[in-house]
Amino acid sequence: MAFEDRVKELAEEVDPADASATERARELHRRLLKPPGSLGRLESLGVRLAGMAGVCPPPVPENPAVVVCAGDHGVLAQGVSPWRKEVTAAMVENFCAGGAAVNALARTVGARVSVLDVGVASEFERHPLLRGAKVRPGTGDLSESVAMSREEAARAVLAGAGVAEELVESGGVDLFVTGDMGIGNTTPAACLIAAFTGRPAREVTGRGTGIDDATFERKTGVVERALELHSPDPGDPVGTLAALGGLEHAALVGVILMGAVYGTPVLLDGVVSNSAALVARTLAPHSVDYLVAGHLSVEPGARVALEKLGLEPLLDLEMRLGEGTGALLAVPLVQAASRVLVEMKTLEEAGIA
Amino acid sequence: MAFEDRVKELAEEVDPADASATERARELHRRLLKPPGSLGRLESLGVRLAGMAGVCPPPVPENPAVVVCAGDHGVLAQGVSPWRKEVTAAMVENFCAGGAAVNALARTVGARVSVLDVGVASEFERHPLLRGAKVRPGTGDLSESVAMSREEAARAVLAGAGVAEELVESGGVDLFVTGDMGIGNTTPAACLIAAFTGRPAREVTGRGTGIDDATFERKTGVVERALELHSPDPGDPVGTLAALGGLEHAALVGVILMGAVYGTPVLLDGVVSNSAALVARTLAPHSVDYLVAGHLSVEPGARVALEKLGLEPLLDLEMRLGEGTGALLAVPLVQAASRVLVEMKTLEEAGIA
Repeated sequence: MAFEDRVKELAEEVDPADASATERARELHRRLLKPPGSLGRLESLGVRLAGMAGVCPPPVPENPAVVVCAGDHGVLAQGVSPWRKEVTAAMVENFCAGGAAVNALARTVGARVSVLDVGVASEFERHPLLRGAKVRPGTGDLSESVAMSREEAARAVLAGAGVAEELVESGGVDLFVTGDMGIGNTTPAACLIAAFTGRPAREVTGRGTGIDDATFERKTGVVERALELHSPDPGDPVGTLAALGGLEHAALVGVILMGAVYGTPVLLDGVVSNSAALVARTLAPHSVDYLVAGHLSVEPGARVALEKLGLEPLLDLEMRLGEGTGALLAVPLVQAASRVLVEMKTLEEAGIA
Repeated sequence: MAFEDRVKELAEEVDPADASATERARELHRRLLKPPGSLGRLESLGVRLAGMAGVCPPPVPENPAVVVCAGDHGVLAQGVSPWRKEVTAAMVENFCAGGAAVNALARTVGARVSVLDVGVASEFERHPLLRGAKVRPGTGDLSESVAMSREEAARAVLAGAGVAEELVESGGVDLFVTGDMGIGNTTPAACLIAAFTGRPAREVTGRGTGIDDATFERKTGVVERALELHSPDPGDPVGTLAALGGLEHAALVGVILMGAVYGTPVLLDGVVSNSAALVARTLAPHSVDYLVAGHLSVEPGARVALEKLGLEPLLDLEMRLGEGTGALLAVPLVQAASRVLVEMKTLEEAGIA
């Protein structure tokens, strides 16, 4: 079967969350040992988790994994970032060596780190944390041509889906955290968000890891030109991803879809993950049922994308690093939301009318 | 020595955070393997933690404890809450039995639970989680007389300080989470916040665990009358606490002061903890250096108190339960903020210019 058909087949396997389990969790929360509603957003999150799992109470996820998808970007030639392309590969090696922010935060919340090279413009030695599934060594320059072919975009989606499937089947992973690494990757994220929301470049383009005013103006212009060049059709998610996306964005679409197929919650990190979620939503509208917005990135496109997805972020700590760092910090909130449903007594059991 | 003198002596032991360690942490963050500032508020928190510990990098707190201080309230006679007084004692028993929200959330973040009966109007059997240090079986009605004597207020402060000291010295606790239980206790919290900020009753009184419009109007009136009756002097923290506070509020003042004396971070929960922090700040201005606002309560007084303290809450999950539940969810953020300073490589070590 063609790669694109396999992506469509995967998307068709995504079922809506279980409305009956959702309702049972809502009802259980009314009876637990606390004033109704007093746990705030932890209650609404727990209700959603029951729907994802199809059971009330939902299981407490004890085996989270952050999947850091990495790729390079031809659009870097347009001067959209002060960082050199080689930093992407260097960071992949640092993730494997355990010295990056994602490693420190993953250790804090007990998550495993899995790095997927889906498009870095370097070769790596084998490493237990690294999955090699390079589709091509970096994208083309999306401001001059398509970033990749439709087939390459579909292959990158399937690479992400494959890692997620392996983590569930062999690793027992029960909670996904999306992560990304790719110097220049907030430019394709802005393009995707503009394409799927119809918002202008200026409203969705940000300063990424920190750029000066001149670079910001140049970056906004690049996003504008790319949108004009490709006239993306938001009804054609694979075509839009191929024209304006990145290989790690595509892989994250696969992680989201496969997470949804397994009924596993997927904690979204920043703007790159948010843009991938818009693609996943177009392919499989019910994939959003399994998404939890972990952290609101400083990037303006993040808020725009999350509004379109109908998701309210759990955390807002003014982070803008990527790697999965923001969403990792929300892992304990997901665990807590499940745990109260599993472990709390009811008012009746506690002898309080 | 008189109890009140012992409180003053304790307050005098609070030293300011270490400016040199703070500056070293700030400088280290500029060199770590990420764009400067990209970890947002996790960076400023880590910098503060270094100052509290007096060392850079600060130790990662691995042994957190939530101290749930419990007491009853004479003002309940004014109809400020729909819950019966007996619920305070029933909840203390539920904390010991492990079936309340605080227990589920403490297990999620690996915190121990310590319950302090400083003023519940019931007797309890001995239990490993429960410390008995009852000063009196509930306060007087603060809308008609002082809630307690100055000596009782001071004894309750010392009871909280004693538990905190024991948890550090015998238990190796390295991070405190403040918790509270006491039906009616948001009324004294509102009174204390009004007294120390000068804001009117209507701006600091809330709906607690959930009350209807009529009860809310009655509660606001009670706060107004109490402030008129006592004309509290914000320069006299023990007198204000005695007139308008609660026994668990006083005990939390002691937890905060003793945490600060040990250089241990203290994660503040909701509005009751916030009101106690205002008392602690008046007794020992530098105690604020050791406070981290864990969660913004829905109660309007919480924001007013935190602004006065100069603290920005880490989480805003629309919670209003108390027990320490909101602040417990911020424990991993404190651990993460320390851990990045301890474990991340520098850009130079990673070979990135």
